[in-house]
Amino acid sequence: MRQSNLFTKTLKHVPKDEVAQSAVLLLRGGFVYKEMAGVYSFLPLGLRVLSKIENIIREEMDSLGGQEVVLSALQNKETWLPTNQWDDKNVDVWFKTALKNETELGLAFTHEAPLTKLMKEYISSYRDLPKYVYQFQTKFRNEIRARSGVIRMREFVMKDLYSFSKDLKEHESFYEKAKEAYYRVFERLGLGDNTFLTFANGGVFAPFSHEFQTVCEIGEDTIYLNEKAKLAINKEVFNDEVVENLGFKKKDFVEKKSVEVGNIFTLGTRFSDALGLVYADEKGVKQKVIMGSYGIGPARAMATVVELFADEKGIVWPETIAPFKVHLLALGDSERVREAAEKLYKDFKKAKIEILFDDRANAGNGEKLGDADLIGCPWRVVVSEKSLDNNTAEVKRRREAKAEQIALDNVVGICKT
Amino acid sequence: MRQSNLFTKTLKHVPKDEVAQSAVLLLRGGFVYKEMAGVYSFLPLGLRVLSKIENIIREEMDSLGGQEVVLSALQNKETWLPTNQWDDKNVDVWFKTALKNETELGLAFTHEAPLTKLMKEYISSYRDLPKYVYQFQTKFRNEIRARSGVIRMREFVMKDLYSFSKDLKEHESFYEKAKEAYYRVFERLGLGDNTFLTFANGGVFAPFSHEFQTVCEIGEDTIYLNEKAKLAINKEVFNDEVVENLGFKKKDFVEKKSVEVGNIFTLGTRFSDALGLVYADEKGVKQKVIMGSYGIGPARAMATVVELFADEKGIVWPETIAPFKVHLLALGDSERVREAAEKLYKDFKKAKIEILFDDRANAGNGEKLGDADLIGCPWRVVVSEKSLDNNTAEVKRRREAKAEQIALDNVVGICKT
Repeated sequence: MRQSNLFTKTLKHVPKDEVAQSAVLLLRGGFVYKEMAGVYSFLPLGLRVLSKIENIIREEMDSLGGQEVVLSALQNKETWLPTNQWDDKNVDVWFKTALKNETELGLAFTHEAPLTKLMKEYISSYRDLPKYVYQFQTKFRNEIRARSGVIRMREFVMKDLYSFSKDLKEHESFYEKAKEAYYRVFERLGLGDNTFLTFANGGVFAPFSHEFQTVCEIGEDTIYLNEKAKLAINKEVFNDEVVENLGFKKKDFVEKKSVEVGNIFTLGTRFSDALGLVYADEKGVKQKVIMGSYGIGPARAMATVVELFADEKGIVWPETIAPFKVHLLALGDSERVREAAEKLYKDFKKAKIEILFDDRANAGNGEKLGDADLIGCPWRVVVSEKSLDNNTAEVKRRREAKAEQIALDNVVGICKT
Repeated sequence: MRQSNLFTKTLKHVPKDEVAQSAVLLLRGGFVYKEMAGVYSFLPLGLRVLSKIENIIREEMDSLGGQEVVLSALQNKETWLPTNQWDDKNVDVWFKTALKNETELGLAFTHEAPLTKLMKEYISSYRDLPKYVYQFQTKFRNEIRARSGVIRMREFVMKDLYSFSKDLKEHESFYEKAKEAYYRVFERLGLGDNTFLTFANGGVFAPFSHEFQTVCEIGEDTIYLNEKAKLAINKEVFNDEVVENLGFKKKDFVEKKSVEVGNIFTLGTRFSDALGLVYADEKGVKQKVIMGSYGIGPARAMATVVELFADEKGIVWPETIAPFKVHLLALGDSERVREAAEKLYKDFKKAKIEILFDDRANAGNGEKLGDADLIGCPWRVVVSEKSLDNNTAEVKRRREAKAEQIALDNVVGICKT
């Protein structure tokens, strides 16, 4: 894409109330636009990153046998009464609204209840199980505070998968597979080294739920990390009994701030019980369906990547989710530079390498170099008078300090690796 | 995909209040699930169709130079006050809600105002224009009545593109290109022959806006159609003056019911004026940006296709948007049939032809044939004891009555055409 055509520009200033570094960089880079606290719109560069994250997650959910749906945001009271989730006294994140005839509606903050109700239409026999259903769907959560930028939003797309199993054994087998898929997702997003399986409150039906916590200063969670064992315990269950049951001692753990980038949860029969989702087993006896839920917020993962890898100059995207792999800069406005850069741009496109081409006539060299650092594409290729004197372009990885002069004919090949 | 794995099933009964034939078929086929009047969730088959429609539209918007974004649903009062769109007296489709601190919010029913506000961040000079920005984003509209199923929903994804131009000439040139792109979209969706450019109320800034109306009994609109001239006039502006200005006579037109599947609209300076979106021209003089809006509802297009082409047995999808190109049925539960069908399934997948394989062990032949007609994939391939006696499979197009016996080795090739 030509940067001269991109409608966004990098910004020097961002809203004063923005404290999260990731939000500041995403705003300055033109990835997102702030509508109000906790509500952001996604601009072309941001949407590209988000779509790549979603596609990685989608591939892994499909590999688990997941089937994709999109449920509605608008919700009837009746769906949520059986699980005691309608009353604002029990759930404090509802946005409520109403039809013209004053029928009260809610905007879904999660989808266990509506999906359980939906599945009653389709599950009646043991033959119908197990089933795995997921969506990328916009959740609305009326958070009192929204000070973490894109990490905690009032409106955000969530990937939520729900599992429906015949019995606990079938459930647990899937739960372990889902855990592995989550490891793969965070590895592919570039968060693998900093993300730890974390034991958290399990509710009524399991001793624990499992969170995927990324160690990160801005995090709103507190975990106790055993880096050697590659696991952590959420503060809420970090006590002698839990630590000992897991075979450790309290002193094996270090307190850390972290961002919850994913969680998996055994719901057991809470929802199938309340909403009557049962199946007939091989003997015709009615049994309750065992459920699990599995969430990841793509935009939160995006912001966490920014928090972790950004340097003083800007964002540093991993190749897997970068808006473009290569940022090509034409420095100076000579005909010679323009022609050489145009040729490279064509060659990159021919090689099907995603490229952002800073072809702006009215931007200075410093501005172009600064923008490239801020936007954070993995490879920067600079064509200038000086480089052309040697028939080269300067090639530099965003995450490295060193730049190299590469013969023009070899530039595309180098960036391909 | 194996039908034994698909979590949805075809249904015999649907909610009694469902009057639209398209909604009845989409519900019965397992494409959508009804949450309440005007609110539907999209199930795997339905989401596949919807995604294909969206991708066709996306390709055409990209070909116009459109840049994709996703704006928020949650809206601040302040954004909508300057255009007098906040007050429920002026706009009767708002869903309103509120933050915990009682700040009133709205759920966007369209995005002219918020996008105009956003573009003020990025447009300041004639060099920044023209720009074309679009999204696939969930709109909320508090319709009093919602009796047309998936055709008029209270929550639905809309493709809305907005154009920002320097002057009327630049605007009009894009407007004509957008019109051509819309023709291409409806052609590719299979609606081309039944969809007519329709002159409608233009508002303050243009003599007309243009709707794309698909002639269809269930339509809520009334148009006057001149089929020979391939154009129509919306009832709201069908008067002597308009008809004569367009060079026709009233008697050249026939009244028809129709569904508005798209519209394009000259907004002029209504929004740039109210919200202060200006640019400096080459002489440094401030000028108002000229805007246009261009909408298509993918789910409405989907339902309209169902309305138009369905027969008494079920849905008939055009190949471009079918959930799967081929529906493969194994009739009977003999080993021989199973093996031959499994081999065909593998061959289709190898040829990268999208295929739904009815491998269900517990479904009868009549049920399988009926489901295939209801779901409506363009090609049906049936493997049975009888066909295998001749080393063939029965191949039938959904839109034709005639079935053919095709040698097993040639089946994939036939369906490829």
